Amino acid sequence: MNVALANRMQHMRASEIREMLKVTQRPAVISFAGGLPAPESFPVEELKEVTRRVLEEEGARALQYSTTEGHAPLRSRLAARLTARLDADVPADRVLVTTGSQQGLDLLGKVFLDEGDEVVCESPTYLGAINALRAFAPRFVEVRTDDEGMVPDDLAARLAACRRPKLIYVVPDFQNPSGRCWTRPRREALLAIAARFGVPVVEDAPYRELRYEGDEEPALLALDGDDLVVHLGTASKIFCPGMRIGWMVAPAGLFDKFVLVKQGADLHTSSFTQIVFDTYLASHDLDAAIVRIRALYRRRRDAMLAAIAREFPPGVRTTHPAGGLFLWAELAEGVNARAVLARCLELDVAFVPGGSFFPNGGHENTLRLNFSNMPEDRIRDGIARLGAVLRDVAVAARGISLARQSILEEAV
Amino acid sequence: MNVALANRMQHMRASEIREMLKVTQRPAVISFAGGLPAPESFPVEELKEVTRRVLEEEGARALQYSTTEGHAPLRSRLAARLTARLDADVPADRVLVTTGSQQGLDLLGKVFLDEGDEVVCESPTYLGAINALRAFAPRFVEVRTDDEGMVPDDLAARLAACRRPKLIYVVPDFQNPSGRCWTRPRREALLAIAARFGVPVVEDAPYRELRYEGDEEPALLALDGDDLVVHLGTASKIFCPGMRIGWMVAPAGLFDKFVLVKQGADLHTSSFTQIVFDTYLASHDLDAAIVRIRALYRRRRDAMLAAIAREFPPGVRTTHPAGGLFLWAELAEGVNARAVLARCLELDVAFVPGGSFFPNGGHENTLRLNFSNMPEDRIRDGIARLGAVLRDVAVAARGISLARQSILEEAV
Repeated sequence: MNVALANRMQHMRASEIREMLKVTQRPAVISFAGGLPAPESFPVEELKEVTRRVLEEEGARALQYSTTEGHAPLRSRLAARLTARLDADVPADRVLVTTGSQQGLDLLGKVFLDEGDEVVCESPTYLGAINALRAFAPRFVEVRTDDEGMVPDDLAARLAACRRPKLIYVVPDFQNPSGRCWTRPRREALLAIAARFGVPVVEDAPYRELRYEGDEEPALLALDGDDLVVHLGTASKIFCPGMRIGWMVAPAGLFDKFVLVKQGADLHTSSFTQIVFDTYLASHDLDAAIVRIRALYRRRRDAMLAAIAREFPPGVRTTHPAGGLFLWAELAEGVNARAVLARCLELDVAFVPGGSFFPNGGHENTLRLNFSNMPEDRIRDGIARLGAVLRDVAVAARGISLARQSILEEAV
Repeated sequence: MNVALANRMQHMRASEIREMLKVTQRPAVISFAGGLPAPESFPVEELKEVTRRVLEEEGARALQYSTTEGHAPLRSRLAARLTARLDADVPADRVLVTTGSQQGLDLLGKVFLDEGDEVVCESPTYLGAINALRAFAPRFVEVRTDDEGMVPDDLAARLAACRRPKLIYVVPDFQNPSGRCWTRPRREALLAIAARFGVPVVEDAPYRELRYEGDEEPALLALDGDDLVVHLGTASKIFCPGMRIGWMVAPAGLFDKFVLVKQGADLHTSSFTQIVFDTYLASHDLDAAIVRIRALYRRRRDAMLAAIAREFPPGVRTTHPAGGLFLWAELAEGVNARAVLARCLELDVAFVPGGSFFPNGGHENTLRLNFSNMPEDRIRDGIARLGAVLRDVAVAARGISLARQSILEEAV
């Protein structure tokens, strides 16, 4: 029987990445598509001991319902860690434990967005944020973004042209998909402009601790003097994603709003995984684990950058990410990355066409490459195959361009 | 800085129950307030072995991202179990694993509700559903409900008066809060009327397996001939709530819509807790565990019913639930259960005033009592204290009524 759906369902599309992940699960495929952490970095052995201890010592509590805000000891521990690592004042009562930081995006949409409200974001921006927020039918306003972050003049101009700007969403550290890290002046400019327009800023920081070179830039949360920053963090990239543990630090005046909508969304995040993560943090050295993860991913990034230098034809521009999981490539104008992908899939190589990361479309000549999930030899092998396809495409494109030129010359 | 929120936030209120749970966490309090399962029923020992085995045998998978639909072996196992237990045809590809069945309610709101759409529900109805759906700003239409279920004529009349009825939400088995179980004729009448109006029916069935006497009634999912039923189930009451595992069985034509909105909401439910639950189901006898839970809760229900018969004053009407976790009481007209609660809290006894379960207000002379979470001696003790308060209140109410009568007599 046909039934009537909500209007918002017209705007909802399946995430190209998650659909593709299904296709690329064959072991033969060299996948640069997902944003998967390396499974060899997961603390499997440690968790055997931790889960046993949690069940032994507080089994009834770990398996029972708990409060929406999150497990109190975990909130305190996260607050202390954030205070120290971000050099920001983060009291425990502003920390909300979320079911992955993806849930934080959904809660932001619920608290802030009515249909037609504007969400201002980087261009390109994180696909998962587009998908989460699209459920609230906003208008996405893309701001010009270069290697240093959002371009302040463009941000100010676009905010001035908005009717009801509700959120500025950014990933300042090693952005997904571009891999870029914002400079301090750009961070300061963003906050000054946001304060001028009175618009909250979402700092989505899943990759912040995965820096492979250079010095840290200050977190927006630490620079925030106007209670405008909502900070999202996650255990997915430094512990494991399968537990679905994230956190939100919200301004005091907004905290209760997020609790309210989270209550409706899933009552609370799993007590069991929260207590397991908290016990892991209390009994193991997360920072030492992060040092190992960084070393692993730096090697993989270097392998990818070296292979790209060897294999990609001239005319393909790539970013040099100082951290995170992703590298961004821009092909020659007119080359369609989806067509390149179709040929790569025949060679068992996958990546994500970049067009998906632009909420208003376009930019079909871009692509995102993940380097965290494949060992170095497969990275070299996969980039060699991708490079061969790109060289083919470049030759064909040059052919077309020469043909066009000769047609033009004949026409003269 | 003051920032602009979404319009929906005007309608959002904290759940009285969850707020109260915070107050009632002192061990001295005899709480009939929450809907908490008995912690002594949790499979703590079994889970020590299961979690160790999951980490040993498929640690990398259990800690990695997975697909939005859910862990494929768990979906198949749930499908087989539902097919057998509900006598319904449930293929695995219509089973979506959710982060508790609470999330199912949020997904339903996202897929179906625009502001002002009507949600038709029992009167009273589940508070968690009111809270989840209120985020989509619907109009709640309460249908008269008696001991057999919704009254069909009232349902039809109210649907006929709706402008855009989008969902009919019901808890047919041992409803929260009333404890009532719908008869088969009422279930059939509901589906016939829903089909006539083309409105999907949400069958929320968290308590279905907790029957203490009498024969099962058919699930709406089993009676559904029109692909109109969305069935919600949960592990919270038969395994444990702390893992946040629920499931939705959706009509084939709607399944992808729910996957789409779940992707934005939290990407997927914890791979770890899904695989732990699946491994538990594969290696342990859930049905035997449910038999033990039923025996435990039946004893507690009987203790509460017996204590009520001894302690409550005449004029208080209570339900006699054949299953589930709750019993419902209706005090004399004009007695306010919130005032009764205030006095009970001084005596370290808690319950939930019934008014919260009516989305459009009223019915302040009702209350909900949970009997699953307290041992029998504390149930007896708590009901004795509550009974004493109710007897006081009854005397006072009679006094007022006599005084009124004498004033009236004097006036004549």
